[in-house]
Amino acid sequence: MGGCSSQSCHSCFFEYQTERMIVVKSKVVGSVFRLIQFLIIFYVIGYVCVVQKSYQETDSVISSVTTKVKGTGFTNTSDLGARVWDVADYNIPPQGESSFFVLTNMIVTPNQTQSTCPELPNQSTICMSDSDCLEGSNDVRGNGIQTGLCMNYSETVKTCEVLSWCPLEIDINLPEHALLVAAEDFTVLIKNSVTYPKFNFHKRNILPDVNSSYLKQCEFNRKTDPDCPIFRLKDMVSEAEEDFQTMAIRGGVLGIIIDWSCDLDWPEHYCGPKYSFRRLDNKIPENNVAPGYNFRFAKYYKTTDGRETRTLIKAYGIRFDVIVFGTVNAVCNWFLLTCTKRRDYYSKHKFTYLDNIDDNAGEPVSY
Amino acid sequence: MGGCSSQSCHSCFFEYQTERMIVVKSKVVGSVFRLIQFLIIFYVIGYVCVVQKSYQETDSVISSVTTKVKGTGFTNTSDLGARVWDVADYNIPPQGESSFFVLTNMIVTPNQTQSTCPELPNQSTICMSDSDCLEGSNDVRGNGIQTGLCMNYSETVKTCEVLSWCPLEIDINLPEHALLVAAEDFTVLIKNSVTYPKFNFHKRNILPDVNSSYLKQCEFNRKTDPDCPIFRLKDMVSEAEEDFQTMAIRGGVLGIIIDWSCDLDWPEHYCGPKYSFRRLDNKIPENNVAPGYNFRFAKYYKTTDGRETRTLIKAYGIRFDVIVFGTVNAVCNWFLLTCTKRRDYYSKHKFTYLDNIDDNAGEPVSY
Amino acid sequence: MGGCSSQSCHSCFFEYQTERMIVVKSKVVGSVFRLIQFLIIFYVIGYVCVVQKSYQETDSVISSVTTKVKGTGFTNTSDLGARVWDVADYNIPPQGESSFFVLTNMIVTPNQTQSTCPELPNQSTICMSDSDCLEGSNDVRGNGIQTGLCMNYSETVKTCEVLSWCPLEIDINLPEHALLVAAEDFTVLIKNSVTYPKFNFHKRNILPDVNSSYLKQCEFNRKTDPDCPIFRLKDMVSEAEEDFQTMAIRGGVLGIIIDWSCDLDWPEHYCGPKYSFRRLDNKIPENNVAPGYNFRFAKYYKTTDGRETRTLIKAYGIRFDVIVFGTVNAVCNWFLLTCTKRRDYYSKHKFTYLDNIDDNAGEPVSY
Repeated sequence: MGGCSSQSCHSCFFEYQTERMIVVKSKVVGSVFRLIQFLIIFYVIGYVCVVQKSYQETDSVISSVTTKVKGTGFTNTSDLGARVWDVADYNIPPQGESSFFVLTNMIVTPNQTQSTCPELPNQSTICMSDSDCLEGSNDVRGNGIQTGLCMNYSETVKTCEVLSWCPLEIDINLPEHALLVAAEDFTVLIKNSVTYPKFNFHKRNILPDVNSSYLKQCEFNRKTDPDCPIFRLKDMVSEAEEDFQTMAIRGGVLGIIIDWSCDLDWPEHYCGPKYSFRRLDNKIPENNVAPGYNFRFAKYYKTTDGRETRTLIKAYGIRFDVIVFGTVNAVCNWFLLTCTKRRDYYSKHKFTYLDNIDDNAGEPVSY
Repeated sequence: MGGCSSQSCHSCFFEYQTERMIVVKSKVVGSVFRLIQFLIIFYVIGYVCVVQKSYQETDSVISSVTTKVKGTGFTNTSDLGARVWDVADYNIPPQGESSFFVLTNMIVTPNQTQSTCPELPNQSTICMSDSDCLEGSNDVRGNGIQTGLCMNYSETVKTCEVLSWCPLEIDINLPEHALLVAAEDFTVLIKNSVTYPKFNFHKRNILPDVNSSYLKQCEFNRKTDPDCPIFRLKDMVSEAEEDFQTMAIRGGVLGIIIDWSCDLDWPEHYCGPKYSFRRLDNKIPENNVAPGYNFRFAKYYKTTDGRETRTLIKAYGIRFDVIVFGTVNAVCNWFLLTCTKRRDYYSKHKFTYLDNIDDNAGEPVSY
Repeated sequence: MGGCSSQSCHSCFFEYQTERMIVVKSKVVGSVFRLIQFLIIFYVIGYVCVVQKSYQETDSVISSVTTKVKGTGFTNTSDLGARVWDVADYNIPPQGESSFFVLTNMIVTPNQTQSTCPELPNQSTICMSDSDCLEGSNDVRGNGIQTGLCMNYSETVKTCEVLSWCPLEIDINLPEHALLVAAEDFTVLIKNSVTYPKFNFHKRNILPDVNSSYLKQCEFNRKTDPDCPIFRLKDMVSEAEEDFQTMAIRGGVLGIIIDWSCDLDWPEHYCGPKYSFRRLDNKIPENNVAPGYNFRFAKYYKTTDGRETRTLIKAYGIRFDVIVFGTVNAVCNWFLLTCTKRRDYYSKHKFTYLDNIDDNAGEPVSY
């Protein structure tokens, strides 16, 4: 618009400028020109659209998980005698948000009371006389508050006495074979429902074509039963290329990864959960430095004279973390543009719409 | 630059090439030209900027949730007698990360001990003689370890004896009306603070203009009290288009969805939590196949002679999952570019800066 | 292609049109032209590539966290007597997914039984005679079900009697100094492993160059030990610019924020966890309206005659939420395009590949 002076602005508005063109009629130059055109079109369609899907909207998943473990185990130890373990015993705490813990091995210290006893012997607790012990001292790696006395821990070793839950736990002698051997055959039902809020897409891992009689007896198998949401603990650990009984001794963390990545431009049928399993903590090495997963908890009792006693349990076991992830791609830009009004409608009627999907989502599930 | 030979590179550098233009003075051609110009500008401003907000930066939310339930309920059953339930009784476990559970119905099996008793009768446990039972057998769907004996379960039915927590739980007779009827009037305070780390934006769901005297007595209502963070359980279930007492019988999972999606180009005042509620598990169907949400836990006791007994509770109830999501858009590209130095400053003084916001965020809250 | 008539389509296909150019040889015009060219190139390289990294792919983190607290504390109160607290006592519940709670202060109400007692006096419970009390009434802010009687609460005040866990908790006299003073010296080991699924990137916060002997004695310090995953509780609270003993009185929520944002175009060595700490709930104000963080739980006992009693504990303490976030950027578009086949290979061998990384990730960790 360089030739446009302010005094003739009206006529200038309707001016149209165009380049003077030369037309070259040559098969060589023309071919090169068309080839370059083709490459540009191929790049746009082939890379930007097909590979990158840049024309698509994406959204991240919102997920809800519940789990239920089944199975009973049997142990016979000197501390506890013959004992059957059911889900209320080995599943601690009784319900988690998206993880569950199965006790497989333990060190039990029964009948602890608040009293005094000699510390476990190590460099800083071994003493010769009371003067080696400092009354009121509280080491972060110790088990209690020192009373200032030096007591016989065994016939040969003297250690500083502490006020603590006595007798102290001796956690050196971890059973070499996991106590709750049967845990590998326990099963767990995982219910997972996901939502992609931007697209109002809602689906459960119990697929519409799965009926309740199938659910009562099925078991996940990547080849024969890929849609069954009931998993045998041993199978999950095997898929993560670990050995259940080895892992059960010192415990560990196993990730149950559910991938809901979908392309919603395809029919909803193609959008399903993809399960994979991997160990999330580091493995047990050859040397005796023990990683694994354990924690301590106690059951509290009162004696008839009102004194509190407890059974301390150092619980080794496998924590299963259900990790749900996924992004969803969908629907070309122009389609979204066209649907803007429809989207507003969806926002208003959001959960009504979702509930309708729920109703049609197949028979509900009993476990 | 085709006309540029290598020997005159210096003069070539300052060459400027431009197209020879034709100016067409025609109202028709000019109008069409201006229309096309207008459409392109409209597309860029109207779609790319206003609809897609492509010029904006986005960030995902980091969230922290605490909850506190209030209310007492009363039950009168043959197993437990007249009994008042407070939060320490019905809220299991006592604190969760971003979910809480309210017990509404239960099957209680008191005075279980490790002993032997006949299995619950079903196809695989009914027996005629000891030879039908396999000592040491442990079915994943059974309740214990078979002793090899065939015992009278009732006057007409014999089943294999198991070592287990006896007497066994009979979970067929679930109360048809939820035991803890009063649970619908319990209230919960939800404290939620969110951060968008990229923008150093920090806000709580207890808004700055909410004072503590209001918080002591308010209750969330979408119309009259949309900013009150105290929710009556019944109201939340109603908003999800469910009936509390029906849901309370077999339990379920309810999502409390807090949407913090904001456009930070608008004043901070406009960026607040938007609450919505939806049932996350599938609904109870007409047939008797029961979904819902339940889990088992036990309270352990010791008798005077040192034997362990327990009360097993199959707890049905509603798990409330607080799901916080949101992306935030903000600030044109050029602004960010200008502010690069300022952003570095923010990264260094990140949490100091945030704490200052905290201080000004209005009166703190008691509940 | 305006000059292309339909009858000569073939010859038209090989036509090449180009603009007729004018070459202006002027240092002024040329300089301006080159300056504009330079600005465009600078914008593309400097802003789009360096600042925005638009050429990069991004991915969000998947994370797994385990924690283990160590330390013992000592309290001496009239309710409980001299008592040592270990991790099984103060860590409630015993294990969480990505948060842990440390009890620092408490109100203990021992020997509660299901019985009747006069309500705590307030406006709605104070009565003159039985006619002021409504049998069966159950206030959501009350402690039980009214029996309809008006009883002496003290020598001067009468209140309505309730059926409840009696004696009722009196939570006004919160100890002014946190009971579990020693909690500030407790330490916690945080194990965190992260995965960026799109890039098959996997790393732990225990870095490959950290060995187990170092882990046994190290303690996180931003200057001297930035890679040690063992944190002293007091240090974390200090970094959030809070005072531990003040926070311990009424409790609070502290965020342990682990930022794994990385640019994978740089060597893996540069991609490590960045720890920061901030208080997530609002601070305690000058006035006596108490925020903080607390919850109630109970320990249940049975007396010799089979009656249930409980010790109710209103637990004040610090909940530590481990919040892991991060996005990762990596690898130019053209590289990804070239590597498409390789990426497919990775998807297939995903977890095998990851396990190999695990094996080389340095010595495992004992704590």
